[in-house]
Amino acid sequence: MIKKIYDSIGLKSPLVHNITNYVTVNDQANILLACGASPIMADDMKEVEEITSICDALIINIGTLNERTVSSMIKAGRKANELRHPVVLDPVGVGASKLRTETAILLMKEVHFSVIRGNISEIKTIYYGSGSTKGVDANISDRVTEDNMKDVIGLLKELSDRTDSVIAVTGAIDIIVYKEKAYIIRNGHPMMSKVTGTGCMLSSLIGAFCGANPQLIPEAAAVGICTMGICGELAYEKMKEMDGGTSSYKMYLIDYVSKMNADLVMARAKVEQLLLR
Amino acid sequence: MIKKIYDSIGLKSPLVHNITNYVTVNDQANILLACGASPIMADDMKEVEEITSICDALIINIGTLNERTVSSMIKAGRKANELRHPVVLDPVGVGASKLRTETAILLMKEVHFSVIRGNISEIKTIYYGSGSTKGVDANISDRVTEDNMKDVIGLLKELSDRTDSVIAVTGAIDIIVYKEKAYIIRNGHPMMSKVTGTGCMLSSLIGAFCGANPQLIPEAAAVGICTMGICGELAYEKMKEMDGGTSSYKMYLIDYVSKMNADLVMARAKVEQLLLR
Amino acid sequence: MIKKIYDSIGLKSPLVHNITNYVTVNDQANILLACGASPIMADDMKEVEEITSICDALIINIGTLNERTVSSMIKAGRKANELRHPVVLDPVGVGASKLRTETAILLMKEVHFSVIRGNISEIKTIYYGSGSTKGVDANISDRVTEDNMKDVIGLLKELSDRTDSVIAVTGAIDIIVYKEKAYIIRNGHPMMSKVTGTGCMLSSLIGAFCGANPQLIPEAAAVGICTMGICGELAYEKMKEMDGGTSSYKMYLIDYVSKMNADLVMARAKVEQLLLR
Repeated sequence: MIKKIYDSIGLKSPLVHNITNYVTVNDQANILLACGASPIMADDMKEVEEITSICDALIINIGTLNERTVSSMIKAGRKANELRHPVVLDPVGVGASKLRTETAILLMKEVHFSVIRGNISEIKTIYYGSGSTKGVDANISDRVTEDNMKDVIGLLKELSDRTDSVIAVTGAIDIIVYKEKAYIIRNGHPMMSKVTGTGCMLSSLIGAFCGANPQLIPEAAAVGICTMGICGELAYEKMKEMDGGTSSYKMYLIDYVSKMNADLVMARAKVEQLLLR
Repeated sequence: MIKKIYDSIGLKSPLVHNITNYVTVNDQANILLACGASPIMADDMKEVEEITSICDALIINIGTLNERTVSSMIKAGRKANELRHPVVLDPVGVGASKLRTETAILLMKEVHFSVIRGNISEIKTIYYGSGSTKGVDANISDRVTEDNMKDVIGLLKELSDRTDSVIAVTGAIDIIVYKEKAYIIRNGHPMMSKVTGTGCMLSSLIGAFCGANPQLIPEAAAVGICTMGICGELAYEKMKEMDGGTSSYKMYLIDYVSKMNADLVMARAKVEQLLLR
Repeated sequence: MIKKIYDSIGLKSPLVHNITNYVTVNDQANILLACGASPIMADDMKEVEEITSICDALIINIGTLNERTVSSMIKAGRKANELRHPVVLDPVGVGASKLRTETAILLMKEVHFSVIRGNISEIKTIYYGSGSTKGVDANISDRVTEDNMKDVIGLLKELSDRTDSVIAVTGAIDIIVYKEKAYIIRNGHPMMSKVTGTGCMLSSLIGAFCGANPQLIPEAAAVGICTMGICGELAYEKMKEMDGGTSSYKMYLIDYVSKMNADLVMARAKVEQLLLR
């Protein structure tokens, strides 16, 4: 399964439309190219429908949202839904302001998302419809641990049932839930939180895997998350070896995505599958 | 000739005004600094005329265009024309949406461009006034080969005659056409297409060379394209040596631009000049 | 003092709100993470007050200003003033257009800035209320030297008295003036001017140090400037050792910020304190 999902990116070279923030957009484009996909960024109302029509997946990321781009997100999202393209929501910083919370809720009302990926505080805000996220990082009190994991999975399952979306919470432990299925992934490295955009890059990467595997969305999301986590582990080893810091780390992370292959992902993936209920 | 054109950048340190997209803008600024020029990015209607007036060249790149910036592009372009500053058009993704195609046509009507640089699908869209570019990369069916090169040159010559612009198509083989002259350049490396922004960076680099050599636009464009291609080759060798990936590659590419000199460009340039008709 | 100021970042992990340009925003986010702070970028009118309320400091950078973001800057700045959060102004390119000069003057009228950091040409434009900065770099004729330093300090003191702000001029020699105090800092490396965004990154870094040390603004600014300069020196050594260029240099610069510590800053800081009058 991993091999099939992984290799389909190389075979199909999906084109991924990103309506995203101006902070991490370059890294998102580069990670898409690194994994074998192609990026296109376009956010003007007048072109988003056409652009998303020639693509295989759409990423909507609210990192530096403004009124102009929110309208474009809805328009592109509806078009992608109509064409049955996978659509990924990255609700960056939801809970940190009313605008972000209301925008996320509006987007979820207007657009069906195949995958919603965020940190635990963002996903909790979406679950409760309100929250008080401290910036763009997860609150420490929200952290997923072995002790609260069962409760977290319950919450994600409810959200998944309500939205018919794959819900992916990423952090020290990553959890993916869709209907009766859950994946627990234990790849990755704490260093990933010391670089801006690892979450945004991951959402784009998930979009690429889903774009190449539209019939296997939860599994494609899982393979995307494993791939990113494994590259995060390898990048840390390389950074240590080269006596580098956070900026080297980001470079090695993208480097490893460009050097990754299905066999290496299979060998290093730490995925556990659960059946719920 | 190469030496004179190359060294004039160091002597004049041209200031280059970029109205560009938010995906690759940082790389464009850094490649301009790397080659010995200085970048300035400004896109507000209220300042673009003043900003372009203190500059030596203007780059107009439609990568993430929106209504606000299109008006600024026209205003800045007209001012640069009035002051006889070289103006470069990078029609990113033209053909992928009506907005992009119409904007490129509008820009070409309102502004005289010294150089129009794009991939072959973008340039064909401009030639025919319509197209269906698949994203921001060239269609494989459009690819320039030894077999179709004569036809491509004919098309570029027509477009050059019609627009009085230097037309530069870049890809595996680069072709520059202006009036009776054509340059075929065979530098570069396929890895350049695995990093976002190599085309945008090249357009900015061409702007720097043209800004420092306003009387030698076709030759300056050719030297800019050779320089980028040579750095792309050297970066590949370094990436292999260091066991890196696409992100390292981008870094080495800009590194080599900052370490390049006229002698090295002369030694490695693979340029062929043709006289047309 | 240095140790206390430096270590407070690690202890408090300040959240820094940036309303900034789209050229260097990614580097600003990464340098904030590298020093132990957290970044958040948000510029929509509807959320800037809320966002800045959850933060410890606000950075206002006019690098690619437009009407929409100028209103957000004022709104956020007033809110930060009300909450007594440190606010840093980076008047990028002020003097290069009327829009930039008028915006800087407007911002200074509407918002109290804890620190105003720029190159000497930008700060002179702010002092005189007009200027003719050539782009985003300092004019050579304005350069701070041992000979004109006394005059420069006099000008900065006047500006500091008039604005009640810490004035920080950075370049080959850095000068910080506030009331009766001045710091002369001789760290840094000329290579820093060959990479875009070192000024913007420094302003964000100063914001992080001030956010963690709101009672010690001039000293926090000095420690931020020393830290950046020392990392610029170390990055140059590493670049030479690795036979790199400007892009490697930027990476090593951020790497060193992530590897820096109070002892190393104390050992390498070249700060001279002056008492004025």
